Amino acid sequence: MTNPPTPYLSLDRSRVEANIARLSTHLRSLGVPLRPHVKTAKSIDVARLLFNGGTGPLTVSTLREAEVFGDAGFTDILYAVGIAPDKLDRVRTLRDRGIHVTVLLDSVAQASAVAAQGIPALLEIDCDGHRGGLRRGDPTIARIADILGDHLTGVLTHAGESYFAPSTADLTAAAEHERATAVSVAEDLRAAGHPCPVVSVGATPTAHFAADLTGVTEVRAGNFVFFDLFMTGLGVCTQADLALSVVTTVIGHRPDKGWILTDAGWMATSRDRSTARQPVDQYYGVVTSLDGTVLPDLLMTDASQEHGILSIRPGSTSVLPDLPIGTRLRILPNHACATAAQHDGYHLGDTYWPRIHGW
Amino acid sequence: MTNPPTPYLSLDRSRVEANIARLSTHLRSLGVPLRPHVKTAKSIDVARLLFNGGTGPLTVSTLREAEVFGDAGFTDILYAVGIAPDKLDRVRTLRDRGIHVTVLLDSVAQASAVAAQGIPALLEIDCDGHRGGLRRGDPTIARIADILGDHLTGVLTHAGESYFAPSTADLTAAAEHERATAVSVAEDLRAAGHPCPVVSVGATPTAHFAADLTGVTEVRAGNFVFFDLFMTGLGVCTQADLALSVVTTVIGHRPDKGWILTDAGWMATSRDRSTARQPVDQYYGVVTSLDGTVLPDLLMTDASQEHGILSIRPGSTSVLPDLPIGTRLRILPNHACATAAQHDGYHLGDTYWPRIHGW
Repeated sequence: MTNPPTPYLSLDRSRVEANIARLSTHLRSLGVPLRPHVKTAKSIDVARLLFNGGTGPLTVSTLREAEVFGDAGFTDILYAVGIAPDKLDRVRTLRDRGIHVTVLLDSVAQASAVAAQGIPALLEIDCDGHRGGLRRGDPTIARIADILGDHLTGVLTHAGESYFAPSTADLTAAAEHERATAVSVAEDLRAAGHPCPVVSVGATPTAHFAADLTGVTEVRAGNFVFFDLFMTGLGVCTQADLALSVVTTVIGHRPDKGWILTDAGWMATSRDRSTARQPVDQYYGVVTSLDGTVLPDLLMTDASQEHGILSIRPGSTSVLPDLPIGTRLRILPNHACATAAQHDGYHLGDTYWPRIHGW
Repeated sequence: MTNPPTPYLSLDRSRVEANIARLSTHLRSLGVPLRPHVKTAKSIDVARLLFNGGTGPLTVSTLREAEVFGDAGFTDILYAVGIAPDKLDRVRTLRDRGIHVTVLLDSVAQASAVAAQGIPALLEIDCDGHRGGLRRGDPTIARIADILGDHLTGVLTHAGESYFAPSTADLTAAAEHERATAVSVAEDLRAAGHPCPVVSVGATPTAHFAADLTGVTEVRAGNFVFFDLFMTGLGVCTQADLALSVVTTVIGHRPDKGWILTDAGWMATSRDRSTARQPVDQYYGVVTSLDGTVLPDLLMTDASQEHGILSIRPGSTSVLPDLPIGTRLRILPNHACATAAQHDGYHLGDTYWPRIHGW
């Protein structure tokens, strides 16, 4: 339906296609294939856009994604969250069905469990202290490699700190550091007799600003299919690239407080306030008219479960626009992954694309 | 299944029953019935616990809830979000099926649309400047009452500011202010010839601390079925009352950083950080062992989509516990409504209770 009840998630297919084309062109110029992370969209339809209607290698964040994408014909899947040993039976079942799942690990305990099941694994390397992984030179790397033997298929790193880079020059530097760290550990392993064919790097910011990917065999990125205000604030995209918005309806006014009330609360946008850490805080999101025109300095400044509060950015001299009860608006989200997760699917005009839920 | 894959939402039925019994006993002593808000649990099974296995009057936050609860035999439903006129067709359809939906409004535009459809409505009154509603004495109240005529069934207010009350004495004062405001507007309307039979008040904090509800005909509260760390911090419950937790598995360690990594990120807990505004910030949640024993000063201090970071509370001298890979833990949430919304349903041992999704 073209006019679903609000709040709903609206997706602009032409922007998704343009975002995919941009990164694909960039990575093609660097000679490295993309293994897109489908944790943002969690949609088979969006994943098909990444491969011109076909299938290809994916990164997933849950085994549920692996199961659903596997059923849809995506048979080369990297589960890029450190494996819990009691999830290996599900991985085994997937592999027995012909869905080639690779897991990720960074400990002896995980390596022993994975080796016992004969499942291929990447070793997680930490390049910037952001999350998990082992640092180059850690003696545990050699122990894990010895335990895994042929089941060690390569190394993976993720430049999590790039989300906080102060400039695009810093993003390029973060990308080079991510590349150099992964490649150097792979070379260490090869020198020790482990083939280590896969060198996997990536994050949306570094994927777009990498100037050289020598030695890298695949790049992971997920958010770029939709982009969001956080990526805009980081300089990775512009607001005009944002493919995802929440459509909402005006349900009230508090002129005494300078508020417009809507039917999109945090249930529709999520509680994500990522831009609060950036130079320009966008609160719960930028407000546009239904046709996408930005309403000057109008923000979703507060949220309860099913109520949004729109008001003028603190300090701005802009005037609250006259938006009668029933007016439909769009909220551009802070964080596309989190906002999309609040919804069962995407509306693209008359088309509806469902999302994968759960674990 | 008693051992579902992590992360999953675990519900302690006996605590839900005790929480329901506590509020029911309190309201019975004050002589006012409960119209529970089902926006927290969004579960037919939990709603039945509220009525000893039967049905009763409900408050809902979405028309989807009204439709699903209506189909389950709950036929007296208040939709307590300001009505968007283009949602009235769905309300009409529900009423034609025998599901008695009442709507909420605070503007002439809404009143005109509602009167044209012959749908009963409550007038939203603002008692503390927290969200929508009209203030006592606003001339718009009389205009709306005249437009609605017999379709005006009463008044509603919600003490949203009570969530920020510094003491339980303040909660009792907020409850009295909520009551007095609603009753006084109802009396104004009756003096002007409008019967105004319904006087609806409520919020979990005020419902528990109200000392007198004279003139009130129903109390709304939702969160109390589960409670959470925010309500604990506010003094409405204790941590031992919390019925909801996210079960997670240890997937890594970063001793150099004092971190334990888990497979429950913000996708499992939500991005809600409500306790950050309270005297004791619980970050993304308090960590307990699987049997519910609190691990001293261990908190979920950071989250990415599918990774949680556990560490010792900043400033504490507690020591990071030894929790091997594969250990299952529980995270007690900041905000039960938001955490529950990240999941498709509740696990209670071998029993699974689904949640209602979407709008």
